Amino acid sequence: MRKIGALEAGGTKMVLAVYWEDGTEIERITIPTESPEETMPPMIGFFRRHQVDALGVGSFGPLELHPEAPNYGSITSTPKLKWKDYPLLKNLLDGRDIPAKIDTDVNAAALAEATMGAARGCGNTVYVTIGTGVGGGVYTDGKLLHGLVHPELGHMLLRPHPDDPNPRGVCPYHESCMEGLAAGPAIGARVGGDARDLPDDHPTFAIEAHYLAQMCVNLILTLSPEKIILGGGVLGRECLLPMVRKETLRLLGGYVQSTAITEHIDEYIVTPELYPVSGLVGSYLLGKQALEEAGE
Amino acid sequence: MRKIGALEAGGTKMVLAVYWEDGTEIERITIPTESPEETMPPMIGFFRRHQVDALGVGSFGPLELHPEAPNYGSITSTPKLKWKDYPLLKNLLDGRDIPAKIDTDVNAAALAEATMGAARGCGNTVYVTIGTGVGGGVYTDGKLLHGLVHPELGHMLLRPHPDDPNPRGVCPYHESCMEGLAAGPAIGARVGGDARDLPDDHPTFAIEAHYLAQMCVNLILTLSPEKIILGGGVLGRECLLPMVRKETLRLLGGYVQSTAITEHIDEYIVTPELYPVSGLVGSYLLGKQALEEAGE
Repeated sequence: MRKIGALEAGGTKMVLAVYWEDGTEIERITIPTESPEETMPPMIGFFRRHQVDALGVGSFGPLELHPEAPNYGSITSTPKLKWKDYPLLKNLLDGRDIPAKIDTDVNAAALAEATMGAARGCGNTVYVTIGTGVGGGVYTDGKLLHGLVHPELGHMLLRPHPDDPNPRGVCPYHESCMEGLAAGPAIGARVGGDARDLPDDHPTFAIEAHYLAQMCVNLILTLSPEKIILGGGVLGRECLLPMVRKETLRLLGGYVQSTAITEHIDEYIVTPELYPVSGLVGSYLLGKQALEEAGE
Repeated sequence: MRKIGALEAGGTKMVLAVYWEDGTEIERITIPTESPEETMPPMIGFFRRHQVDALGVGSFGPLELHPEAPNYGSITSTPKLKWKDYPLLKNLLDGRDIPAKIDTDVNAAALAEATMGAARGCGNTVYVTIGTGVGGGVYTDGKLLHGLVHPELGHMLLRPHPDDPNPRGVCPYHESCMEGLAAGPAIGARVGGDARDLPDDHPTFAIEAHYLAQMCVNLILTLSPEKIILGGGVLGRECLLPMVRKETLRLLGGYVQSTAITEHIDEYIVTPELYPVSGLVGSYLLGKQALEEAGE
């Protein structure tokens, strides 16, 4: 059986694995994300040692995802300056001509959840991770959405909660965007410390649920997903998900008449089933797609 | 050559046409939208008289668009009560077994603009009409987006403008949604009269442009369209479009690094080329698709 290499490239760590074509994992390693000079050689070495037959990558972005672009597979305008305009896919391939595919880490996670996770069987789903940042992947009609660039759900503009002491949020780019209002650092700034020490009934969680619900409402009205998957560290606060579901229904105001939402919201807004490896499994699936599309 | 019937079903009027398969229009009529009892017989008669070989419909919604649903082609939970749960497509077919396809009026318009209008050549586009209401159609990866139901962009939640005297908006379902803040009636409520009498430099148009731009930003971040098409009566105020483009760039804050946006915004946010027949032409295209998919 053939081997598929998978990389989930994150801002703090790189998770690499090699799978048999049927999905059986052979080996997995984690490498801290430093500069390309430090981090690339061991990654290239890992995939070379395994002689992988295809490669799938889910990476932090933004990325160039047009296959016909000369810099296909490059990280483009990231604030992680050492990786700016870095040809990640090309250099990972290290001159080998094997089938390969790259997508955003969150699109990879959306693919994994839609294929074998919480949204299996759904042709349309959206995956959002809320942690130190917010990112989202979109799967429509059985394919990952790219469009002009790729979705950047994390910066969706929202309406500040009237009780938010920090209604502008903490994003350097946008006033009151999702990431600036609702990612981990935003919660920290709002409460002036570590929110992990606060009880579930602290008002900041109602504010947080409101922002997550506003995002869910706008995703429903724009993408009409069959399921919304919310992951990431912030959702580790287990009281949040039920609050988000309730607030989503309240904000929708009965407008979208689908029983999947109105009667089954507990199965509609859910957590990822493949956490914490949604992105890694999605990267394997990208590699598998590349292999299949190459007709090999 | 075969004939394709097309209906653009609106809340105030029905526009019907028959085309030759190559798109040449044979006849077009308009009928006011009353109750189904009054409005359906002349519509059925028109298509029967022409002996159309296929039928395409773009209709106000919400609609049941899952081809396998028993009520495929029905209008579902509309506030237009006479048309609630009405089997529009089935009754239009009047027992004839010809290829037929239905979609939302705005999805039909998006299809037309993507096929032969302002977004031709784009696999990903979004069409939004801003008039007495706000509606949007979404075309991703060369297909109209449905998902769980279909997009309802018009009710996207927005952040009220600090100078808006009516920050809650006028939508009965939602606080500060797009339609409630930015459709024609919202502008009227904001200025306490008919906005058509106001000069271009009246502050309400800056507020309006801000709302349209917020929507464009959220569409860019969610759908990553290659082009955004803004139509409808409100855009008849020609000063608005340049203001929307400028405000979209300001709100994006340089976050999405695509020259299509950063350098060519005038070609990125545009008006429809097929106005006022985008929806009708799209309905013809739906009928043509149905004919082709039937392999006839």
